Amino acid sequence: MCPAKVSDHAERGYIIPIGGGERKVHTSAILTRFIKLCGGSKARIAIIPTASRLVDTGDRYRDVFEEIGVASADIVTLDERSDCEDMIKLATLEKATGIFMTGGDQLRLATIIGGTSVARLMRRANAEGIHIAGTSAGAAFIPEHMIAFGRGGATPKGGLATLAPGLGLTNKVIIDQHFRERGRLGRLLSALSYNPFGIGLGVDEDTAAFIGPDDVIEIVGSGGITVIDPTGLEHSSMADVSRGKPVCLIGIRLHILLDGGRFDLSTREASPSSG
Amino acid sequence: MCPAKVSDHAERGYIIPIGGGERKVHTSAILTRFIKLCGGSKARIAIIPTASRLVDTGDRYRDVFEEIGVASADIVTLDERSDCEDMIKLATLEKATGIFMTGGDQLRLATIIGGTSVARLMRRANAEGIHIAGTSAGAAFIPEHMIAFGRGGATPKGGLATLAPGLGLTNKVIIDQHFRERGRLGRLLSALSYNPFGIGLGVDEDTAAFIGPDDVIEIVGSGGITVIDPTGLEHSSMADVSRGKPVCLIGIRLHILLDGGRFDLSTREASPSSG
Repeated sequence: MCPAKVSDHAERGYIIPIGGGERKVHTSAILTRFIKLCGGSKARIAIIPTASRLVDTGDRYRDVFEEIGVASADIVTLDERSDCEDMIKLATLEKATGIFMTGGDQLRLATIIGGTSVARLMRRANAEGIHIAGTSAGAAFIPEHMIAFGRGGATPKGGLATLAPGLGLTNKVIIDQHFRERGRLGRLLSALSYNPFGIGLGVDEDTAAFIGPDDVIEIVGSGGITVIDPTGLEHSSMADVSRGKPVCLIGIRLHILLDGGRFDLSTREASPSSG
Repeated sequence: MCPAKVSDHAERGYIIPIGGGERKVHTSAILTRFIKLCGGSKARIAIIPTASRLVDTGDRYRDVFEEIGVASADIVTLDERSDCEDMIKLATLEKATGIFMTGGDQLRLATIIGGTSVARLMRRANAEGIHIAGTSAGAAFIPEHMIAFGRGGATPKGGLATLAPGLGLTNKVIIDQHFRERGRLGRLLSALSYNPFGIGLGVDEDTAAFIGPDDVIEIVGSGGITVIDPTGLEHSSMADVSRGKPVCLIGIRLHILLDGGRFDLSTREASPSSG
């Protein structure tokens, strides 16, 4: 599940977790920015609606992408693990300049796509410069370590977040979505406190983190992104507490960034919007 | 509303905000610790039930304090501002070794006690070594700047917290109560981001911050205290956002401390429970 290696002559594509609830219209700042990155009118978008149990989820995005103006927008239906070895579906993904995963349940994505040719293709494509976005469950699925489930609440508790292996486009962040709307700070802190190796990104609805090839994140959208930086963590009692009991954490750094704000995953420096 | 000056020969009394919902039984770690500080069997406790609109709130605490074992536990009923100039009530407060404010609505405390002889007496008594505790609304009322009201939610928004002048026992902290239970991180961050001079203490239910004369806080109780340290705040957009809109904050430090944990308001260093 490690990210595929970026070769010397290539540049990784953008990784774009969206917090869910983005405006599904052609004027959406998030979706238009995604399409522009993918080539604008020359973009070939593959839509993976696997997370959703609704039949029209893919159609809605296809309509919006076509309204924005793309060369093609194809729905790649992956309902069974065997679909992820289908040569026609793999070929559609192979020719895409951008791949978009809809919302729903991230465990559907992980159980159906995990370990298949589609998962390998997506990691390799991203390493070769293809941009991959996911909203809500599609965002949660992006990193190597995914929050599978866990209840809301402002403060961390033993076992509050259940992690599972994700797609593995990056191993530098853990992502939580619908962040402000569902009060998930405690869940994200819990997820990070197991092993504070990475950065927590709490992504609000209608908000996206555009993680560039240089590992600088730019925030786009109407909400905010809560960046949890455990670099300076001095103490975590997660190993000692029983399920549901509060966890002691000392030395967490926290930023709340809005549209135009940036966070550098390498230097771990945050900057506000210059506008 | 500034704290009264502690004279050279005196030591300030403890200031004890409790997050509400503390166990009102004689085995309560919080209440027994408070009584012990106040002199144990020699303690003379004055109970101020002003925040509450219920008639028996003071009685419940009197019963518990008597069960723990004190020299006296007197209810000082302050329902009108004129009550706060009553010589008999002032005399009861004057002879107390500890003063306890119940929960209810902190604006009742502020509107009835603020600016009266009782408020002045309490600040002076604390500077002379008398311990003052407050639970829930009683906790919110303690500092110079009090959160009067504001909705829950994990992330800060413009105008989310409404501040009002409090009792003024300390100007080093802003207190929020029922913290974890009501998801008030956003409210406390909002309150701090107006003017990040102080430390935010988010106190969970059945949990207390025993703020000592040396300004070292010790945590007692079954929940946690979320310490928000804005010392390193690099940027706040609170001045630029309209009401209800998200606020950009960069460089917040956050600790979650449990029973036995400590935070030094002078050095701003946190330490976990040694146990």
